[in-house]
Amino acid sequence: MTELNLKGIIAYPVTPFSACGERIDGDTLGLLIDRLIDSGCHAIAPLGSTGESAYLNDKEWDEVAERSLSQVNRRVPVIVGISDLTTQNAIRRARFAQAHGADAVMVLPVSYWKLSEREIYRHYSRIAQAIDIPIMLYNNPATSGVDMSPELIARIVREVDNVTMVKESTGDIQRMHRLAQLSDRRIPMYNGSNPLALEAFAAGAVGWCTAAPNLIPALNLRLYEAALAGDLQQARDLFYRQLPLLQFILKGGLPTTIKAGLTLCGIDAGVPRLPLEALDEAETERLAAILDTLR
Amino acid sequence: MTELNLKGIIAYPVTPFSACGERIDGDTLGLLIDRLIDSGCHAIAPLGSTGESAYLNDKEWDEVAERSLSQVNRRVPVIVGISDLTTQNAIRRARFAQAHGADAVMVLPVSYWKLSEREIYRHYSRIAQAIDIPIMLYNNPATSGVDMSPELIARIVREVDNVTMVKESTGDIQRMHRLAQLSDRRIPMYNGSNPLALEAFAAGAVGWCTAAPNLIPALNLRLYEAALAGDLQQARDLFYRQLPLLQFILKGGLPTTIKAGLTLCGIDAGVPRLPLEALDEAETERLAAILDTLR
Amino acid sequence: MTELNLKGIIAYPVTPFSACGERIDGDTLGLLIDRLIDSGCHAIAPLGSTGESAYLNDKEWDEVAERSLSQVNRRVPVIVGISDLTTQNAIRRARFAQAHGADAVMVLPVSYWKLSEREIYRHYSRIAQAIDIPIMLYNNPATSGVDMSPELIARIVREVDNVTMVKESTGDIQRMHRLAQLSDRRIPMYNGSNPLALEAFAAGAVGWCTAAPNLIPALNLRLYEAALAGDLQQARDLFYRQLPLLQFILKGGLPTTIKAGLTLCGIDAGVPRLPLEALDEAETERLAAILDTLR
Amino acid sequence: MTELNLKGIIAYPVTPFSACGERIDGDTLGLLIDRLIDSGCHAIAPLGSTGESAYLNDKEWDEVAERSLSQVNRRVPVIVGISDLTTQNAIRRARFAQAHGADAVMVLPVSYWKLSEREIYRHYSRIAQAIDIPIMLYNNPATSGVDMSPELIARIVREVDNVTMVKESTGDIQRMHRLAQLSDRRIPMYNGSNPLALEAFAAGAVGWCTAAPNLIPALNLRLYEAALAGDLQQARDLFYRQLPLLQFILKGGLPTTIKAGLTLCGIDAGVPRLPLEALDEAETERLAAILDTLR
Repeated sequence: MTELNLKGIIAYPVTPFSACGERIDGDTLGLLIDRLIDSGCHAIAPLGSTGESAYLNDKEWDEVAERSLSQVNRRVPVIVGISDLTTQNAIRRARFAQAHGADAVMVLPVSYWKLSEREIYRHYSRIAQAIDIPIMLYNNPATSGVDMSPELIARIVREVDNVTMVKESTGDIQRMHRLAQLSDRRIPMYNGSNPLALEAFAAGAVGWCTAAPNLIPALNLRLYEAALAGDLQQARDLFYRQLPLLQFILKGGLPTTIKAGLTLCGIDAGVPRLPLEALDEAETERLAAILDTLR
Repeated sequence: MTELNLKGIIAYPVTPFSACGERIDGDTLGLLIDRLIDSGCHAIAPLGSTGESAYLNDKEWDEVAERSLSQVNRRVPVIVGISDLTTQNAIRRARFAQAHGADAVMVLPVSYWKLSEREIYRHYSRIAQAIDIPIMLYNNPATSGVDMSPELIARIVREVDNVTMVKESTGDIQRMHRLAQLSDRRIPMYNGSNPLALEAFAAGAVGWCTAAPNLIPALNLRLYEAALAGDLQQARDLFYRQLPLLQFILKGGLPTTIKAGLTLCGIDAGVPRLPLEALDEAETERLAAILDTLR
Repeated sequence: MTELNLKGIIAYPVTPFSACGERIDGDTLGLLIDRLIDSGCHAIAPLGSTGESAYLNDKEWDEVAERSLSQVNRRVPVIVGISDLTTQNAIRRARFAQAHGADAVMVLPVSYWKLSEREIYRHYSRIAQAIDIPIMLYNNPATSGVDMSPELIARIVREVDNVTMVKESTGDIQRMHRLAQLSDRRIPMYNGSNPLALEAFAAGAVGWCTAAPNLIPALNLRLYEAALAGDLQQARDLFYRQLPLLQFILKGGLPTTIKAGLTLCGIDAGVPRLPLEALDEAETERLAAILDTLR
Repeated sequence: MTELNLKGIIAYPVTPFSACGERIDGDTLGLLIDRLIDSGCHAIAPLGSTGESAYLNDKEWDEVAERSLSQVNRRVPVIVGISDLTTQNAIRRARFAQAHGADAVMVLPVSYWKLSEREIYRHYSRIAQAIDIPIMLYNNPATSGVDMSPELIARIVREVDNVTMVKESTGDIQRMHRLAQLSDRRIPMYNGSNPLALEAFAAGAVGWCTAAPNLIPALNLRLYEAALAGDLQQARDLFYRQLPLLQFILKGGLPTTIKAGLTLCGIDAGVPRLPLEALDEAETERLAAILDTLR
């Protein structure tokens, strides 16, 4: 397995659709990725929750994966979200990502029927056996319907070869404490809950998986740098400054709010796919007001 | 819109897979449907949660819908589950079901990102506008990730033309009370929570949506008949008799437990699709013991 | 231990306070008890949650216990709520109740610090050893902060001699199913959740512990009688008729709403003790409107 | 109103009982308080949750308040927990505390019946009007049964004169963020959730309300000092070092675990009052092992 030392701001681009909402807008996707890299983000993570991966058909998914990887072109590491409801298709996607140059894949155990711990474990180990690049285990019960305990997560990281990183998005800082304890603080932890950014760094997270850099990359990066430097006062000030935006994008749903924010920034990335709807007018005004205070 | 007066036991067949798990086993599906109709079930509901609808690709979904409708061949009403993550594909499935003779469709607002009330409402109204047959609104937050309040449900039934029936699967009897109150007891309510079968009938549900008839149709039907006759003592006795099975299939997941039960009954409907796994040995023995007491 | 075959409507009087809120109004308490007995209630339960037991000092508590027992004067069974935060004072109250003629006591494991199962078990067994009359175990996590599983409850009933009855107030009908299963339907179950009255009887509850008879005794009694006769249609109609009141008194808190309702009925039982406040004007009008429809 | 600038480690002594559990052991209480002050704690908070305040009768409560205040003798500020179920007795205790020299009182809205926001607000304002010393509002739904939103808390602090400090014990760091936002970071926030100590300081808490200094005062103080100095790396290391103890005392209940720990340290403070029981043998061994690693 290749080594990967992922740190800092891992940025999640949205997946832009063409005006009628039917087609992937690859050029705008390329533009978004370039903006994220140019702003200093440390890695790019296409096809995550933010990327509306769950709403794409397989052909579209392949198209976004391929375009994202070729656009980044090894300037920074790329971690591709390959989650799917069936193990079979998750494996297909993982192989596709590896074949096209992904540095790592991210796996959320999406479910319809609740999965037992045995089923989750074997889902990860089957995917891991099918590829040679590292896997970031991703826990996000709010979207996946499956909640993995720190104990289960630590066991998977310990026993399944390619699973080397953990993204925690429950927003419960005690999960990070527990993971740290279970691994003697050796599992690389990534925070996926935006309003927990400050405290996750305090607790020892090495990275922040976030869609916020689509809108406010400099503030995100400065928070990381202050935390890395151990400057708590500075980190706290930077955090409270950007917190209204972090709360807003969490509450309104990432694809919906980030796409609205991009429009406000002059970039047309379309709107989310139905049944998701575009941010309504009143909320868009609130978002504009928040962004105004951050310029 | 066609009229449909759906009552009683609405039976949910599993979707059988061939040995290698790769293909739909249409002949066994036909056999399962015949068994359910022959045992006296009042309607057939393919492609529900039990039918692993979420784990099928579009081609497979079409195949199961078509085979189910042709197999029933109008002996009893058929209500087809057409839920999908995108509104567009839910509409495609709804039209397919109507074109192939479905009497109604069942719609669960499956989600990855949480849906707002406005998004849920418009998801239903868009599907309703695309077809002419009745829609059963289906609330099941445990699998869909979206919980609709009785107030929202009552509004959708009142305002969206084709939505005429409600299947409640939260297992919270107060939801049925509230729905009854909001509609002056006029919304036809169907219970989708197996261990609530007795009390849902007591509260006025007109039907029970259940996978249990794959294993114990006579007990399910007799409970309905006792409730319909208003014989509370008899209904209670029948309910407690079958409750261990109802609890078991809820806890273990319907596709997993029903397929294991069918194997115990001598019918090979395969196992669920990965990441779902076959029921393990110890649990299968417990299921066999429960079934033994009910013969 | 004396035998007690408690069935039907167990009525909970409020504890009336004098105008300034400082003193117990014993005469009005006597009047309320007479009304409940005259209306046909099967038992009287003073000093329950409704009786603001938790808000009385020891002297007041004794006064209410004594007056209630002497007022009933063995016309119907009396079950006295003796719950207290310390085991020592709960025992003192239990002995006091027994000494003054109580037929049974009701015990809720009130807590500040969460109690372990061992602590709950020993709390019950210590009280049971101190008296000779039957104990009704009472589970109501919403007020007590402690939730007892059906398994723990069944074990206490099985092993602790005087604990012979169970009042379940979680509002979760599956708890009653589980209790019934764990005891082969032999534990006498009493329902303490007003909006669950219909379904609890359906599931086999032998009694309904309720403050509603302070306001609508005839409807409560007729629901019980219909359920007892196994007439499901009649029971359902009676239930839905009184449901708005049952929902109202649950939502607004029993002492608050029942005292407001008594005032509307021309009986001045005072208002609840601070920090509880009297029902506000808007809510009082809603209550009056509900009561009007039930006359 | 007197000014009070409370910061750092606010230490919560247990209330020691005599061997038979019947009487307050004032001398040991004095010893515990001296130990806490000598170790450098910045304030003493008797009669909190840790002090088993809820399990004391009024006479005992007065005795502990008086002894604590005289023992501290103005060496550090004293904040007395005066919570009681009735507003009347809470006021009595608040006045008693003030009369005997308390620097502030802490108020948790203990409840049996849930309190409305109006009831909570008026409970605080009635107490505030009765005294002249500052009030620390205390939110701890796990023990009190009442959860106050940050919005309600901020309104009480803004509008009720004496309420000047907030102790948050939900363990949800987002509550602190919200409180900070609602007051432009001006409300003095105190953290009452031990395993959140690191992150609460990161988020801007000025104090840590904790019973841990009964056992490990030096580690608690060093964590505070590192956080105050903005040395994140050092604070993190100190936090993870003491986290097993912080988790243990939270999980087992503070009076139970702290009293067991004191015994292990050679101080006999008795055991908690029934229904609370002494820590069992297996858990006591676990606690001893944790304490061993921290020496």
